[in-house]
Amino acid sequence: MRYAIIGTGAVGGYYGGRLANAGHDVHFLLHSDYAHIREYGLQVESCNGSFHLPRPNIYNSVQDMPQADVVIVALKTTRNSLLSQLLPPLLHPKTLVLLIQNGIGLEADVQKMFPGLWLAAGLAFICSAKTGPGRVSHQCYGHISIGNYSCPDQQVMERLVADFNASGIKAAEVEYHEARWKKAVWNMPFNGMTVAMNTQTDKLLQHPSTRSLIRRQMLEVIGAARALGVQNIDESFADRMIENTLDMVPYSPSMKLDYDFHRPMEIDYLYTRAIAEAHKAGFSMPCLEMLEAQLRFLENLHS
Amino acid sequence: MRYAIIGTGAVGGYYGGRLANAGHDVHFLLHSDYAHIREYGLQVESCNGSFHLPRPNIYNSVQDMPQADVVIVALKTTRNSLLSQLLPPLLHPKTLVLLIQNGIGLEADVQKMFPGLWLAAGLAFICSAKTGPGRVSHQCYGHISIGNYSCPDQQVMERLVADFNASGIKAAEVEYHEARWKKAVWNMPFNGMTVAMNTQTDKLLQHPSTRSLIRRQMLEVIGAARALGVQNIDESFADRMIENTLDMVPYSPSMKLDYDFHRPMEIDYLYTRAIAEAHKAGFSMPCLEMLEAQLRFLENLHS
Repeated sequence: MRYAIIGTGAVGGYYGGRLANAGHDVHFLLHSDYAHIREYGLQVESCNGSFHLPRPNIYNSVQDMPQADVVIVALKTTRNSLLSQLLPPLLHPKTLVLLIQNGIGLEADVQKMFPGLWLAAGLAFICSAKTGPGRVSHQCYGHISIGNYSCPDQQVMERLVADFNASGIKAAEVEYHEARWKKAVWNMPFNGMTVAMNTQTDKLLQHPSTRSLIRRQMLEVIGAARALGVQNIDESFADRMIENTLDMVPYSPSMKLDYDFHRPMEIDYLYTRAIAEAHKAGFSMPCLEMLEAQLRFLENLHS
Repeated sequence: MRYAIIGTGAVGGYYGGRLANAGHDVHFLLHSDYAHIREYGLQVESCNGSFHLPRPNIYNSVQDMPQADVVIVALKTTRNSLLSQLLPPLLHPKTLVLLIQNGIGLEADVQKMFPGLWLAAGLAFICSAKTGPGRVSHQCYGHISIGNYSCPDQQVMERLVADFNASGIKAAEVEYHEARWKKAVWNMPFNGMTVAMNTQTDKLLQHPSTRSLIRRQMLEVIGAARALGVQNIDESFADRMIENTLDMVPYSPSMKLDYDFHRPMEIDYLYTRAIAEAHKAGFSMPCLEMLEAQLRFLENLHS
């Protein structure tokens, strides 16, 4: 299968790089790093083995790219409106678009732009950062869960999962809604709270007040998921997420980095849409709604 | 009636100063300002007319003070444990102790220390600051509501209210629980939110997200009050508080000043006790409970 990568940053650079390094036909869309990667290639430092791609297939415009069987979108969701321009040149009738992005409601919005498009969600559990032009540093984790949103061809899903696994990326197919909401259980409390309290994950869990608040927020997400019909999720999942986070190094989630570097925060898909979906099912998440309001306030101060 | 003032700061200095300036027998307990006021007196700059007391009755120990008919406590509530030492020398069997302090549960705790004591709550609506040694600046407002907690002698309550009014302080007696909870409707959202968001009242109300969050938090307090049997309070009170605050100059509530100057915050009586009282009535205030957790986290960073 031919792959196109839109958003060659910490996530897209790592996963696309792994696929290319394993010999797959991968085509990267680049902006600021185009000239640097053309000269020096793409360097991936990884806890699972570093590698260098001296001559990846790179482009600075989608017009020049070939149609792909799988388009991996790893943009910040704040830029998703660009997809109406970026995707068409890459699509044939059976292209699968995989959104490796955080949040709730992404696939529904992209589907509205492209009603017949085959869509899947990619939930990346990865600590990775772009450390310079053409340079990605993958610190730990890295597995990916893939949830089928609207792909009618199960073989394509299976080949995608197989390609990932064959390239050194642990991948598995999971139920779409369950995957998105389980990811939200971690994302919604930690992304916003590290911004609102100007801190990192470890500090939030060290203090008993914020630890218990984080757990309460996780239970709000779990409550919303259950109200929306997601099975296989209960209180114990919150405790497991907290235990896992205690095992992590002190961590700044992507929203904290965005805030610190004065980039737009992904409030829409991480909070607003999730809250709206929950409301549709008659469920409210008061602490996360408060956190959303605090983030909107802080976002406005920054802008 | 003879008055003793414990806590001669922005609030105690103003109200005690007004009483003394009107000719009442007022005795001030002082600490750091003792030498300065002995030499230069007490200066009160006030929007209602400034005045200077050249030789107020001042003390640096309660042991030297006479017994009083009314003891006005205007300490920060974080120092209320000191009352077990400070009050006894000032008390005769019919002394009324007026707590001009913010929060919920104060009188109950002082009553536990002194079971037979006559207690009342003073709710000060005042913008006032200590601007230097022996110097109080009263910018606006200034009226005080007095709620009878455990004073069996209604005449004493009436004389207190009359003395205030005769001294140029608008005062009125109100129902105790209603007064404390109505004050909490303003205090709980604005004190904590200005700290958590590092801002002032006006900015919180300018942004639609935080304005609606503030209103939601006010409704939580109103819900708690109603669950605890307080009548005469409904949604319209929240809207009135918001309108009043919009009319104020940009304002830093006392907790924000405490935080900025690295003084202890009054989290216990402003949040923890109010939340506990509400829980006793089966009512929870999720957004204010979240705010309490955020304040505990920030307090810990500072200490």
